[in-house]
Amino acid sequence: MANSLRIVVVGGVAAGPKAAARARRLDPEAEITIVEKDRLLSYAGCGLPYYISGLVENRNDLMATPIGVLRDPDFFAKVKGITVLNETEATRIDRAAKELEVRHLPTGATKRLPYDKLIIATGAEPIDPPIPGNDLQNVLRLKRVEDADRFRELMTSNSCPMVTIVGGGLIGMEMTEAVTACGSAVTVVELLPQILTMFDVEMAALVEQHMRKVGVRVLTSTKIERIVGDEQGRVKSVVTSAGEFPAQLVLISVGIRPNVQLARDAGLIIGPSGGINVNEYMQTSDPDIYAAGDCAEKRCFVRGTACFLPLGSVANKEGRVAGSNAVGHIERFHGVAGATALKVFELNTGRAGLTAQQARDLGIRVVSATVAAPDKPHYYPGAEPIILKLVADRATRQLIGIQGVGTGDVIKRIDVATTAMTAEMTVDEVANLDLAYAPPYSEAMDVLIHGANILRNKLDGLLEGITPDQLKAKFDAGEDFVLLDVRSPAERETFSLPQSIHIPLAALRGRVAEVARDKEVIVYCKTSLRAWEACRILAGLGYNNTKILDGGVMAWPY
Amino acid sequence: MANSLRIVVVGGVAAGPKAAARARRLDPEAEITIVEKDRLLSYAGCGLPYYISGLVENRNDLMATPIGVLRDPDFFAKVKGITVLNETEATRIDRAAKELEVRHLPTGATKRLPYDKLIIATGAEPIDPPIPGNDLQNVLRLKRVEDADRFRELMTSNSCPMVTIVGGGLIGMEMTEAVTACGSAVTVVELLPQILTMFDVEMAALVEQHMRKVGVRVLTSTKIERIVGDEQGRVKSVVTSAGEFPAQLVLISVGIRPNVQLARDAGLIIGPSGGINVNEYMQTSDPDIYAAGDCAEKRCFVRGTACFLPLGSVANKEGRVAGSNAVGHIERFHGVAGATALKVFELNTGRAGLTAQQARDLGIRVVSATVAAPDKPHYYPGAEPIILKLVADRATRQLIGIQGVGTGDVIKRIDVATTAMTAEMTVDEVANLDLAYAPPYSEAMDVLIHGANILRNKLDGLLEGITPDQLKAKFDAGEDFVLLDVRSPAERETFSLPQSIHIPLAALRGRVAEVARDKEVIVYCKTSLRAWEACRILAGLGYNNTKILDGGVMAWPY
Repeated sequence: MANSLRIVVVGGVAAGPKAAARARRLDPEAEITIVEKDRLLSYAGCGLPYYISGLVENRNDLMATPIGVLRDPDFFAKVKGITVLNETEATRIDRAAKELEVRHLPTGATKRLPYDKLIIATGAEPIDPPIPGNDLQNVLRLKRVEDADRFRELMTSNSCPMVTIVGGGLIGMEMTEAVTACGSAVTVVELLPQILTMFDVEMAALVEQHMRKVGVRVLTSTKIERIVGDEQGRVKSVVTSAGEFPAQLVLISVGIRPNVQLARDAGLIIGPSGGINVNEYMQTSDPDIYAAGDCAEKRCFVRGTACFLPLGSVANKEGRVAGSNAVGHIERFHGVAGATALKVFELNTGRAGLTAQQARDLGIRVVSATVAAPDKPHYYPGAEPIILKLVADRATRQLIGIQGVGTGDVIKRIDVATTAMTAEMTVDEVANLDLAYAPPYSEAMDVLIHGANILRNKLDGLLEGITPDQLKAKFDAGEDFVLLDVRSPAERETFSLPQSIHIPLAALRGRVAEVARDKEVIVYCKTSLRAWEACRILAGLGYNNTKILDGGVMAWPY
Repeated sequence: MANSLRIVVVGGVAAGPKAAARARRLDPEAEITIVEKDRLLSYAGCGLPYYISGLVENRNDLMATPIGVLRDPDFFAKVKGITVLNETEATRIDRAAKELEVRHLPTGATKRLPYDKLIIATGAEPIDPPIPGNDLQNVLRLKRVEDADRFRELMTSNSCPMVTIVGGGLIGMEMTEAVTACGSAVTVVELLPQILTMFDVEMAALVEQHMRKVGVRVLTSTKIERIVGDEQGRVKSVVTSAGEFPAQLVLISVGIRPNVQLARDAGLIIGPSGGINVNEYMQTSDPDIYAAGDCAEKRCFVRGTACFLPLGSVANKEGRVAGSNAVGHIERFHGVAGATALKVFELNTGRAGLTAQQARDLGIRVVSATVAAPDKPHYYPGAEPIILKLVADRATRQLIGIQGVGTGDVIKRIDVATTAMTAEMTVDEVANLDLAYAPPYSEAMDVLIHGANILRNKLDGLLEGITPDQLKAKFDAGEDFVLLDVRSPAERETFSLPQSIHIPLAALRGRVAEVARDKEVIVYCKTSLRAWEACRILAGLGYNNTKILDGGVMAWPY
């Protein structure tokens, strides 16, 4: 065994164990060691909110294989033939000697682990902004299993009826749902004008609308000034730019950043995103050192730039690639599309690629379409609405982004669009995708295909649209235009947009004289399908300044 | 209006109305006429089984827009500006005069409709094999809404406690579920050795297993000899090669074929699949005549050959393309992957591309992988199993087929794989797909990614597999080999394969002497994941003839 390859992996949560397991499968002889600072390892970090909410009852379920075997050091030794040093911190990489210095935290004992190949999978840390009072008791961050334990303990003690969540990102949203499920009232405080910047503003507004509907207080464009404690040093309120709100627990989740200190100290190149620079083999600037997971920089192939994307799905894939290459089995990682899924109460939400705003910021000439439709035929029981926004590049006709929100099956469409973007498909190709159809699963023309067809109509100059936020801006500016509702009288009764005139589609040919010819005409219906029909009728009658309201009433978030 | 384009569409169900509507939107001036033999039109044919089962209560829901407007001739006239001639048969195309001869069925009146562009969307008809007794009362086929009415009437009358369904294809399976939901006992009679030839034999066996579990009698390799009637001329039994079975209702659903008589009589070219030959513009051999939907031949881009694929999803897309081109707006249809979805009781099933058998029949060197896993993390409530079989071309490493069966979300994976096959992705590219991950939706490494990775391992010579039907054949032939179960003792107790020895994975390194070195070793566990781990351990110890049982116990259908 003297000549067997020595592989040392720093980090025992996602990418690290994956890399180690892959290396083991490819090289039964290698000596493989995982160094992990914490006691627990190989847990499903993304499952922590569901453990806090009680949806996942047993904490060990997050650290066990599907058949219930705990992934502890003993498991790694016996099943995988991998040595785990937990509660052990990696303190320094000696690249010249090819040794890793580690310290056993309970005893303070140090040693040097020689390596042939080193894999850094040190993950990411929550950002802890300098908010006065952030050291009070019951001001929490969520990273480790122990953090979740503490959170769950407070939730089950019923001592925190009011919780403030600082930050309207992914973790903030998942924790809002978890805390609400525990019976506490949640206030979300977000500094930016919208939650979830992974969405365009009007798509995020749909999520905000839903959260308010279920009783969450959402404060956007709001700054946390300080956190106030009682005499025992426990949180009692938060003071924000929108006022003071009582809270017995505050979660700070304003974002996370890659853990790169070890790599930086070793002189490895850190990329513009703040992650460790790696090539497509997951190799750092030192060819014997790999990095994988949240600490490693990603390349977004839609955006064409480096990015930070702390997702378990990506970490696992990168870990596999790093583990393969470390033992000489060449594999590449092709980068990310930024695909993300998020459940917010009853809403399924997801996105991939670029938002319209992100694309415009990159100088891309954008065309977007919003389609609102049931996820399966309206006549099939259990059909639920989804709203998709598709973004294309006007120059290439390529699909470059998708966002989805709804109680229906959003994620299937995100995954299909992600696959299409990976293949650099045009919207014409997406519209022709032969997606599997049967009434329990989708419409004959799936909502994604509909969306792609709307984009094609827009690209071909057959149709113009206006987004809900653009229409709202027109209202706010007091602009003069015709807003035409072509729904049925029954639909009109339930809800209508302000200042709109009403002519049902079937009556439009006969009553067209009621529509001013010299003004911009914006047409809407429930989903924008009849509005598109109406625009074509108006075009045939000589109207040349018509637009549909993208997504219709279903996608109207205000 | 004298110079406006005259478009005549034959067929008013799926592709026809779609083509007409698209043409109208692009050309507000065109004179557009739909000719439909039946009274009802623009209905969701695929929804008929759910209407029969009572899941869809109101028949009109199948013929209404999502907001409940019936798509009758009045709707087409008022909303679309399209003339519908229903109960009108297209009897002859006069290509020289560019006129369509039609006959109004209730009155027998004939007339000639001049056209500039003709679109044939005559659909398909059930095949009616010459079974003695197939003209008895209560021997039904399912095509039109009226057929479904009759079926539902018989089901709600409770006069048919025993129903025989002849043919184990898509319609047969959907109707088996519908009839069972109505409380009748179903016998399915299939001439071939398996139901659902869209699947490989062992995947179809999983569906058969499920059907038997819910009480359906499935007879494969069984021929219907005759249908026997009582004195009133009503069905009372069916005589098959496997015996006589009482039945008060017989559904004949042995397949359907394209309706091409009108096109054939007009001298249009009929393709090898039996459908009307069309180019990618959906143009027939007469450039002024288009065909779309079930009557038109498809090109399968995975198979590279012509095929017949009667699916509403394809019909709608083709209708759109035909309607566009008919008015001079050039569009292409890129062919089909053969993606199909089917719900069979609690099972979600689907497929696309080629089965392993179909690929071998085409001379392709095939490698396949079967992966069984929960559709989301095992710790997340509501996780359900799915079993995917992926097929790749050994020469190109391209994914060329997928099949899926399970109570979990199969169809998402089918659609992603279809999109990947459309882009001719290799399994390496599929394994790197950045699919959206969050615990409510999928594992960090989605089951599809796992499947692609197994394929990569097989392609790279790291792993060999054996399919359940191949293992069964070994049992049946009495071959000598070691069957090694590496599951836990608790799992072993619930079910095990015959003649297998048992060494839990964690004990394998220590007890390897119990595994014969000179024989083929086939390893299994619940899903094949630990079996793969075991094979790598054995490989490290010098065993060079090991295989995993593809899909493990979860995918074992016998």
